[in-house]
Amino acid sequence: MAPAGEKKNILKRLDAGEVVIGDGGFVFALEKRGYVKAGPWTPEAAAEHPEAVRQLHREFLRAGSNVMQTFTFYASDDKLENRGQTLSFTGRQINEAACDLAREVANEGDALVAGGVSQTPAYLSGKTEEEVKAIFMKQIDVFVQKNVDFLIAEYFEHVEEAEWAVQVLKASGKPVAATLCIGPEGDLNGVSPGDCAVRLVKAGADIVGINCHFDPETCVKTVKLMKEGVEKAGLKAHYMSQPLAFHTPDCGCQGFIDLPEFPFGLEPRILTRMDMHKYAREAYNAGIRYIGGCCGFEPYHIRALAEELEAERGCLPAGSEKHGSWGSGLSLHTKPWVRARARRDYWEKLKPASGRPFCPSMSTPDSWGVTKGH
Amino acid sequence: MAPAGEKKNILKRLDAGEVVIGDGGFVFALEKRGYVKAGPWTPEAAAEHPEAVRQLHREFLRAGSNVMQTFTFYASDDKLENRGQTLSFTGRQINEAACDLAREVANEGDALVAGGVSQTPAYLSGKTEEEVKAIFMKQIDVFVQKNVDFLIAEYFEHVEEAEWAVQVLKASGKPVAATLCIGPEGDLNGVSPGDCAVRLVKAGADIVGINCHFDPETCVKTVKLMKEGVEKAGLKAHYMSQPLAFHTPDCGCQGFIDLPEFPFGLEPRILTRMDMHKYAREAYNAGIRYIGGCCGFEPYHIRALAEELEAERGCLPAGSEKHGSWGSGLSLHTKPWVRARARRDYWEKLKPASGRPFCPSMSTPDSWGVTKGH
Amino acid sequence: MAPAGEKKNILKRLDAGEVVIGDGGFVFALEKRGYVKAGPWTPEAAAEHPEAVRQLHREFLRAGSNVMQTFTFYASDDKLENRGQTLSFTGRQINEAACDLAREVANEGDALVAGGVSQTPAYLSGKTEEEVKAIFMKQIDVFVQKNVDFLIAEYFEHVEEAEWAVQVLKASGKPVAATLCIGPEGDLNGVSPGDCAVRLVKAGADIVGINCHFDPETCVKTVKLMKEGVEKAGLKAHYMSQPLAFHTPDCGCQGFIDLPEFPFGLEPRILTRMDMHKYAREAYNAGIRYIGGCCGFEPYHIRALAEELEAERGCLPAGSEKHGSWGSGLSLHTKPWVRARARRDYWEKLKPASGRPFCPSMSTPDSWGVTKGH
Amino acid sequence: MAPAGEKKNILKRLDAGEVVIGDGGFVFALEKRGYVKAGPWTPEAAAEHPEAVRQLHREFLRAGSNVMQTFTFYASDDKLENRGQTLSFTGRQINEAACDLAREVANEGDALVAGGVSQTPAYLSGKTEEEVKAIFMKQIDVFVQKNVDFLIAEYFEHVEEAEWAVQVLKASGKPVAATLCIGPEGDLNGVSPGDCAVRLVKAGADIVGINCHFDPETCVKTVKLMKEGVEKAGLKAHYMSQPLAFHTPDCGCQGFIDLPEFPFGLEPRILTRMDMHKYAREAYNAGIRYIGGCCGFEPYHIRALAEELEAERGCLPAGSEKHGSWGSGLSLHTKPWVRARARRDYWEKLKPASGRPFCPSMSTPDSWGVTKGH
Repeated sequence: MAPAGEKKNILKRLDAGEVVIGDGGFVFALEKRGYVKAGPWTPEAAAEHPEAVRQLHREFLRAGSNVMQTFTFYASDDKLENRGQTLSFTGRQINEAACDLAREVANEGDALVAGGVSQTPAYLSGKTEEEVKAIFMKQIDVFVQKNVDFLIAEYFEHVEEAEWAVQVLKASGKPVAATLCIGPEGDLNGVSPGDCAVRLVKAGADIVGINCHFDPETCVKTVKLMKEGVEKAGLKAHYMSQPLAFHTPDCGCQGFIDLPEFPFGLEPRILTRMDMHKYAREAYNAGIRYIGGCCGFEPYHIRALAEELEAERGCLPAGSEKHGSWGSGLSLHTKPWVRARARRDYWEKLKPASGRPFCPSMSTPDSWGVTKGH
Repeated sequence: MAPAGEKKNILKRLDAGEVVIGDGGFVFALEKRGYVKAGPWTPEAAAEHPEAVRQLHREFLRAGSNVMQTFTFYASDDKLENRGQTLSFTGRQINEAACDLAREVANEGDALVAGGVSQTPAYLSGKTEEEVKAIFMKQIDVFVQKNVDFLIAEYFEHVEEAEWAVQVLKASGKPVAATLCIGPEGDLNGVSPGDCAVRLVKAGADIVGINCHFDPETCVKTVKLMKEGVEKAGLKAHYMSQPLAFHTPDCGCQGFIDLPEFPFGLEPRILTRMDMHKYAREAYNAGIRYIGGCCGFEPYHIRALAEELEAERGCLPAGSEKHGSWGSGLSLHTKPWVRARARRDYWEKLKPASGRPFCPSMSTPDSWGVTKGH
Repeated sequence: MAPAGEKKNILKRLDAGEVVIGDGGFVFALEKRGYVKAGPWTPEAAAEHPEAVRQLHREFLRAGSNVMQTFTFYASDDKLENRGQTLSFTGRQINEAACDLAREVANEGDALVAGGVSQTPAYLSGKTEEEVKAIFMKQIDVFVQKNVDFLIAEYFEHVEEAEWAVQVLKASGKPVAATLCIGPEGDLNGVSPGDCAVRLVKAGADIVGINCHFDPETCVKTVKLMKEGVEKAGLKAHYMSQPLAFHTPDCGCQGFIDLPEFPFGLEPRILTRMDMHKYAREAYNAGIRYIGGCCGFEPYHIRALAEELEAERGCLPAGSEKHGSWGSGLSLHTKPWVRARARRDYWEKLKPASGRPFCPSMSTPDSWGVTKGH
Repeated sequence: MAPAGEKKNILKRLDAGEVVIGDGGFVFALEKRGYVKAGPWTPEAAAEHPEAVRQLHREFLRAGSNVMQTFTFYASDDKLENRGQTLSFTGRQINEAACDLAREVANEGDALVAGGVSQTPAYLSGKTEEEVKAIFMKQIDVFVQKNVDFLIAEYFEHVEEAEWAVQVLKASGKPVAATLCIGPEGDLNGVSPGDCAVRLVKAGADIVGINCHFDPETCVKTVKLMKEGVEKAGLKAHYMSQPLAFHTPDCGCQGFIDLPEFPFGLEPRILTRMDMHKYAREAYNAGIRYIGGCCGFEPYHIRALAEELEAERGCLPAGSEKHGSWGSGLSLHTKPWVRARARRDYWEKLKPASGRPFCPSMSTPDSWGVTKGH
């Protein structure tokens, strides 16, 4: 394995037209495995249970991920403090451990390490640009020291705060990606996706896009609007999407958090691997080249992205040794009617039943009245 | 940690009225993580990727499992050969590795190791009782050598084959559990659950019950019928259930395998943690004291069983340090309407939407005509 | 047109192997048209708005009905009194008007007139056999005077009361049909459908079967059980079914009345004409030769029964002049994709969407606890 | 009853702020009753079976309709000829019979008679303005001779053709209403609802709005856009809506005709009376004062509109003598759990189940590709 510094830079890959497969979200996956608490969603497991975090990194790497995001979501000191948990490790220790784990696994394959910052309570409570930027600066200190390969400003609901983050990250000299968690209607101040993207690019982002809060269909649609905005403004950028692995056709503008099922009743919405093939193709066709996932993604979801884009990427991921594409592994099944499912056509057309006849197909978001009252 | 031999025997626990929490199924969980191939479903990962198997054991232990089942499903030599895969390890190596991993993790907590055998191609192809028993004898050789704590004959569709397995396992001198993968209509020869249970007990099983193929509701209902049969016959036994974590109200007599969604479109059917609370309570109320899971179970499902039975077991599992029961972890959320979900009542009443308005709620099993033609 | 007396008797038709098409229920159809009040469900419209009742008779006749049931449901004096309505007509006037309307329209085509009695409050409140029979005797006085062609004892939940009714009706010398509103689990005292049928035949019923409360699938299944019972007892009878035009897979033993949607939210459950073809065929295949409907049936539902059985009956109904079987009328549509629907295959395979993604597919009956507590 | 000429003019009613309740569509209602053929959808029943048409008029009148639309949909000679049916009556005879029936029933209550024209094959095949106007002129000749109270140009997909119709109708000196069958995306040439409305008002329409093709929610939304357009242009008009009684959340721009269920599988989409209360209120709140229905409406749907607007209209319709508002008629039911449904709250909150667990909630319109390719 090549040392980190010798791997091909994220921008060189994208400039060369390569497809970069991202990883999936860690908080939901590790919550199911017993290492993250829903509610606080803090990443102390990086220090407390490194074997669990390492294993998840490995599974994503094996599934085809070209990026290991450090498990540092919500790891700023103020958040760790505010969440009502007594932790055995300092925020700095957690951030450092997360960087080490990501680097360790990235070096087992062709993956880069990305460090990330996300929206702050400081911004929401009305702190000044200087104060908010100071928080970001403190956060990236570890990333720079641990020499991550690039930086991601992600999960912002207000483009203004994301701009500030990008400006701070940009100062590090590393490539910067910026993703908002918004839908086609724009950020929570009503700034359109196109305008958001233009502002992020002008602030210094090399890659712009969407993460979390909405399903793949909605995210790809929103990134398309961002791309149109950037192109209309005569600017250039790369595009990325890291959507949920949950179907959310019934979301309001704040995404899946407002659905009554968030976060403990989302199971019926989980995407299948067939849904992932469709997402990968639509993202690719939309000009998105950094294609990953967020909450709800399991390793097999990422593998499905990599399998759909096998021709474009020129390879299958290691994990495909344990997977027959499009159900071909069923061809040896003992029952003839199960063998008959060993074909792409079957799985593409399947409309999977929920097994829940007493439940509806769509929900009314909880904050409906609130968001409409804006 | 006490060495294996000094832990409380499975039968002593059950005789004392303790609740024993089982683990979840490994093939589905590891398929999603990239280590098991759907179709063959063989367990070579025990030797090839021990860190992945060890991690899953640990997660179940942490979630409250009192039993680590060796990851040896379909690990008999004939099956490994027949499944079209060239393996780098012999069947014996795989079985030994699986035993070592289960023991290693079991010793990290209060868990027993169980080795298992399941239905054979030999029986289906009409081999004699002697031939089939010879296969079981060969399979348990490793388990005895590795000194597992007890044995499980599981996943049998015909009670006759299960009887033979029980007779062989019983000869080892270890406690024997036996589970069929049948529903309330009985085994594939039409033997009723009550009669099946009586025959298994008479063959030597200490614990009888149901695993796989059906959802918790159906499995508990079937174990109840087994219990009624055993009691009516004036016999005694302990009862166990290890159902799917998928809703299957639309199954035929062969269970989820005949659903059109098997195995790649089952996501909308995945049970929530609330469904698991209900299952644990219903199983307990039905007199079942060995309560675990099979395909579809993730660690958080097992943890929900342990949390529901906290009072009966006198403890919460380690993994509950990262979980507020019944959504209490949401009480610190920033949005008031999400905080309002931090209560049991909310999650118990929720009818989770599928987010799939173009899909039905129930499917017609593929083999409908076939099974009805029996 | 032949006068009533010269038409072929109902039993001669059935003995000759003819298919007799019944009509649909009047109370639901006339409630939608504004002439019956939901709750009381009384038939005073026969006297108050004869043109509306006559028109509905005509539509069923035109759709192929061979029987005009007098619109006398719940028309006994005690019921009319108890329902809290001040009526401008006496019960006798209502019953007479209903007989006249049925006869008038029956004489416009090849239809017989049937007068009916149904379950009484007297029976439920514990009156003696003599008292209950006295009520039935009073009720059929008008039918005999108006010379209806045969009598129907219908909508009984307890076979004992139905036996009493049959004994009284039989004394009139007219052919007697008897239908219960029960499902496969039997009457409300737990008497099986087979035993119920045997008792009705022994009491004197020439035709036995099921009406109301359940969907066609359930009703046909229940009539099959009745037929098995009668044949096992070495008796002979003709069979009839007059089910709901609502899908009720989620009913308890008391049928659709216990569904939360009864009676104002049943629209999503209404059967299509394709469902009716299926019902007609299944009823015919089950040996049922008197095939009609109850609540929810509109004239086009009856027409679909007659069209499905065109070959067996040797004719199409008059109303088919305005209907192309299986969508053939669409062949002239201007849009090619609508023209493509002008074929049986299309409509047989269609799984019609509800357009209601916020609603479930099945409901929990209101009295679940109550009926299970029996 | 006052003779037609002495009734209050439609515009005087609307100018005075009165709510005018329309009737429901005749072709769907009479198709179910056996008098209209799906496909051609022509109104020859006005001459062939006047009693059936008269009865439906009466039911709508009784339900509260203030307008009797002549049953002359698709009654132009060219359409009657082109639909492949040999008719016993000329187009003029049919149109005259329809006018007479509407007038006869209108005079039985407080209703006006409206004659209507709709889109022509001539326009679609590219005929000139003069040619298309000639067709409209011929059509209204009967209406003028029969002295209808006002005229409606309805069911237009292109605003240009509707303008031509309005110009012709306006020349008669009678009040003119104009409704398009479009959704919020505008007419089939992409003209927005606001611009359509402005053009119709400028052409002479006194009342503008939407009929058919979409459900109430969509229609009210579209009329709102029309109203905004008219007001922004500094013009004045009255507004009307006559939507489907089918839920169509999944429609494309051509409405329910493109749904796979059209026209024989729409039953699960039928609106309940509770849905109608909601529609009436939303239409009223949107400033719509002419509130009626189209395909799928039965008399009880119209009655629900009238009951919802009882306070605004100062009266209940005659048909309410057979209806307890919001389920109050159930208060006398024998079963306590049915009596418990005799309240508004219960029916407002009900999410009615489809009883069809094997069917989806939404469909993909057939012409999706086609209409998107426009």
